[in-house]
Amino acid sequence: MCRWLAYSGSPLLLDAVLYRPEHSLINQSLYARMGVESTNGDGFGVGWYSADGSGDGTPAVFKDTAPAWNNRNLRELAGHVRSPLFFAHVRASTGSAIQQTNCHPFRHGRWLWMHNGAIADFHRLQRDLCMAVDPALFPCIEGSTDSEVMFYLAVTYGLDQDVPGAVARMVGLVERVGKEHGVSDPLQMTVAVSDGERLWAFRYASEGKSRSLFYSSAAETVRHLHPELPFLGEVSDATRLVVSEPLGDLPGVWNELPEASYAVIPATPGVDYLPFVPEP
Amino acid sequence: MCRWLAYSGSPLLLDAVLYRPEHSLINQSLYARMGVESTNGDGFGVGWYSADGSGDGTPAVFKDTAPAWNNRNLRELAGHVRSPLFFAHVRASTGSAIQQTNCHPFRHGRWLWMHNGAIADFHRLQRDLCMAVDPALFPCIEGSTDSEVMFYLAVTYGLDQDVPGAVARMVGLVERVGKEHGVSDPLQMTVAVSDGERLWAFRYASEGKSRSLFYSSAAETVRHLHPELPFLGEVSDATRLVVSEPLGDLPGVWNELPEASYAVIPATPGVDYLPFVPEP
Amino acid sequence: MCRWLAYSGSPLLLDAVLYRPEHSLINQSLYARMGVESTNGDGFGVGWYSADGSGDGTPAVFKDTAPAWNNRNLRELAGHVRSPLFFAHVRASTGSAIQQTNCHPFRHGRWLWMHNGAIADFHRLQRDLCMAVDPALFPCIEGSTDSEVMFYLAVTYGLDQDVPGAVARMVGLVERVGKEHGVSDPLQMTVAVSDGERLWAFRYASEGKSRSLFYSSAAETVRHLHPELPFLGEVSDATRLVVSEPLGDLPGVWNELPEASYAVIPATPGVDYLPFVPEP
Amino acid sequence: MCRWLAYSGSPLLLDAVLYRPEHSLINQSLYARMGVESTNGDGFGVGWYSADGSGDGTPAVFKDTAPAWNNRNLRELAGHVRSPLFFAHVRASTGSAIQQTNCHPFRHGRWLWMHNGAIADFHRLQRDLCMAVDPALFPCIEGSTDSEVMFYLAVTYGLDQDVPGAVARMVGLVERVGKEHGVSDPLQMTVAVSDGERLWAFRYASEGKSRSLFYSSAAETVRHLHPELPFLGEVSDATRLVVSEPLGDLPGVWNELPEASYAVIPATPGVDYLPFVPEP
Repeated sequence: MCRWLAYSGSPLLLDAVLYRPEHSLINQSLYARMGVESTNGDGFGVGWYSADGSGDGTPAVFKDTAPAWNNRNLRELAGHVRSPLFFAHVRASTGSAIQQTNCHPFRHGRWLWMHNGAIADFHRLQRDLCMAVDPALFPCIEGSTDSEVMFYLAVTYGLDQDVPGAVARMVGLVERVGKEHGVSDPLQMTVAVSDGERLWAFRYASEGKSRSLFYSSAAETVRHLHPELPFLGEVSDATRLVVSEPLGDLPGVWNELPEASYAVIPATPGVDYLPFVPEP
Repeated sequence: MCRWLAYSGSPLLLDAVLYRPEHSLINQSLYARMGVESTNGDGFGVGWYSADGSGDGTPAVFKDTAPAWNNRNLRELAGHVRSPLFFAHVRASTGSAIQQTNCHPFRHGRWLWMHNGAIADFHRLQRDLCMAVDPALFPCIEGSTDSEVMFYLAVTYGLDQDVPGAVARMVGLVERVGKEHGVSDPLQMTVAVSDGERLWAFRYASEGKSRSLFYSSAAETVRHLHPELPFLGEVSDATRLVVSEPLGDLPGVWNELPEASYAVIPATPGVDYLPFVPEP
Repeated sequence: MCRWLAYSGSPLLLDAVLYRPEHSLINQSLYARMGVESTNGDGFGVGWYSADGSGDGTPAVFKDTAPAWNNRNLRELAGHVRSPLFFAHVRASTGSAIQQTNCHPFRHGRWLWMHNGAIADFHRLQRDLCMAVDPALFPCIEGSTDSEVMFYLAVTYGLDQDVPGAVARMVGLVERVGKEHGVSDPLQMTVAVSDGERLWAFRYASEGKSRSLFYSSAAETVRHLHPELPFLGEVSDATRLVVSEPLGDLPGVWNELPEASYAVIPATPGVDYLPFVPEP
Repeated sequence: MCRWLAYSGSPLLLDAVLYRPEHSLINQSLYARMGVESTNGDGFGVGWYSADGSGDGTPAVFKDTAPAWNNRNLRELAGHVRSPLFFAHVRASTGSAIQQTNCHPFRHGRWLWMHNGAIADFHRLQRDLCMAVDPALFPCIEGSTDSEVMFYLAVTYGLDQDVPGAVARMVGLVERVGKEHGVSDPLQMTVAVSDGERLWAFRYASEGKSRSLFYSSAAETVRHLHPELPFLGEVSDATRLVVSEPLGDLPGVWNELPEASYAVIPATPGVDYLPFVPEP
């Protein structure tokens, strides 16, 4: 399994959330507490949308197959790049090759996608799932992970028009193909996806026991509870973090996203999350 | 394009042909003379069958995404590993990702496969070709190269029973699928394949102008012509090298394999090569 | 030998000079024209000062031991990072190890340093040169290149107070130590150094035949001569590029820096360069 | 801290001890039990002397900066290389750069050296220790670890003539230089060294609490106690393993090497280890 983090809000130096917190994502690459594996050292990736519009709205992606904890380039980047919306992911391979094209986040046009979890018996379902990908997108699949195939299935199913719908149809297909191959409870996922404007975070598992996922409380609330926190001074109230596991133990900061639900950020006032239901 | 070398004969230290010759394969990684590209620095690989049977007949494969010319591990290996049958390949990517799973040689069970050339407009033919691979083998495809798909198509078409036939059927399919997508002359290849017992080398191009390929003369002939050559003293007369381009300029050592032909080593006395005809 | 590029002027996307020009630095990593080696594939590095002040004036450094031409992370970075002052370097090792700590540019505090050239018989002079480095700086030497030792010698000799003087004293020491070991003409160098405010470029060789080095004409001049150039529209007249070899063949754009001289950018009006004389 | 393993005895496939045992060294790279760090993912290395004499008595060294647990090349090598005497090391950096030249084992001529431990405040002692290295050997230091400097100090002090004496003099120097810099208890080490004929293993710490180190009982004893063990059938009685931590929990197999002692293998009958005393 893996650990990931997604940030949306006021432009922030990546370092502020990747390295500074007590139990930062980089710390989680060595000492994850809630993951199946405590070590997530099979590569990492960050994806960010530029604060100054560089890249014409297309996010930058930086990936490496080495562990995040000892990567000097990542530390350099984190200390010099500011972004209003960025993803970071540390990988623990469940068997697929250690290569950049298997590192998250995955990008297609303006879209970023990252995943923690797995498709059970993927090798048995892989071919049917790949066949369901839009033939025009098939050559875009560069790696050998279930996560990348899930992404291109979601793109195939209309990510551009309707994110929750596309993800629901992707999950519906995975479960149908799983059933056809006698794989009960084929899917396990927490997924983050963004187009640079908004951030969607999904938590779902076929058997109903999905990986942990948390979102941060409104910045004003956190500021009020923890005036000591360094970077909160600068950020807008709409700023949110979604993480595989909390970056610290501060009370009132982290809220668990329930089973079978998804969050959209910036959030509609009063709506922290909505139910997620696969479309068969 | 790439450069490759295949050796079959008396157990030899890899170093003797990878580093020692004037225009060795490692030298070719920086200064290829006959390739489309003079630099082949997008990764490399060696595959060898053990002289002492280690590995139960399965060849070892060592691959790296960095250039061969500065790789210390390759030099160490070459200076300490002896093998009666080994492959070496230096890569010049035509666009696909720089990752170990895209480096040659490819292995499946006891089989090794490497390729120099390309399938034209591969991104357009890729899906149909992948669909033609035995579903049971589909998950074995780990990378994104045309070469690996060609290999699993050949395995699908009976490499185990009939090597020239399986390769002919693979080429026939690629040309048919190419024609269906309006790609004339889709294939360009020099291929080496082995099961650890014998070595097959193919040269073919749809348009009839394939990459260069050479095989060495019988060791006794070379010894006679060039008593100065270091390692020839030790090797059997049946020993042969097949290379993308000659390792030196010695007259009488290197013979070009003609267009649309293939060689089998150990060779049947008097038969240096046979015609290669695709099977539609 | 290596190839390098230094940019100073209006904040620019790295991509504009690293990838866009006909004979860009990335192109030079494969096809250098004026270098001793045409291939510079033994690693690369970029160093940049943030346009928005991120990093508190300390430049970011991104290095990799793989070739620049196929590096996806570099391309991503170049397409999303803007900087008013940046260095880029592609390496051709003269024997020292292929490792990030041997890649240029080197950084110490706010300083960046990169070098093309070599100290002759460095292995014989290395110890004496290292001994001359300020003991407090000795542990900062992480790699095994002559270039890094030259940098820390310059820091030892007062780079902070007087750049040309510190470099002159460093060169003076190298030549004296060389003479002591019977190495005539020990030094060959083109060096770029910056503190984030100004850029200094030096060209010098003990025997008087140093590597090529060019600086660009004033932006207004180039704009006038070549209205077609894409990025010149945006840049200030003080903007300059210093390069191992021209990025194109446009007349009037590139001027050779003479033997034994150095340039300071931003330039004092009317002063393109000054003489460089080692201090024994 | 790190974990290491040294094997001496009947030629064995590296795989038999690197991957097969329940708590193999590769397993220890992810789940060390007795180390300061449970993860040893900052690179690894193996060094082996050829069973067939390839390399003229000089050992081969294979190193990588990535973790051992996911390295395919290491698995390939381990499955195809047999050796009568080999070292393997998984690294947990205490701060120095992640590069091949900082990976163990280190080699000089016919000698291999690896280390687990550290020199306290190394950055303060580094220069004086480097100065004590034979000037002719100084350029051999390619990396930035304390371990490599300890090795070249031992070579300087006569490793070729008297291994225990050279190591005792090296330790004596480190402790003297430490005292001069106000560093009490500067050294912490378990060291393995070999010339291809014999294997020496040292355990020592200035403060007397050194890292764990174990050696295996005579093969006949182990065979008697554990007839189930796979590879013991083939090995000679003189075969021994020395490891940072046991490869399993079998009673009677593993013996702790006491504080301040060293073992020589092949062992003199009745002499499992001797006392180790630094030479001031």
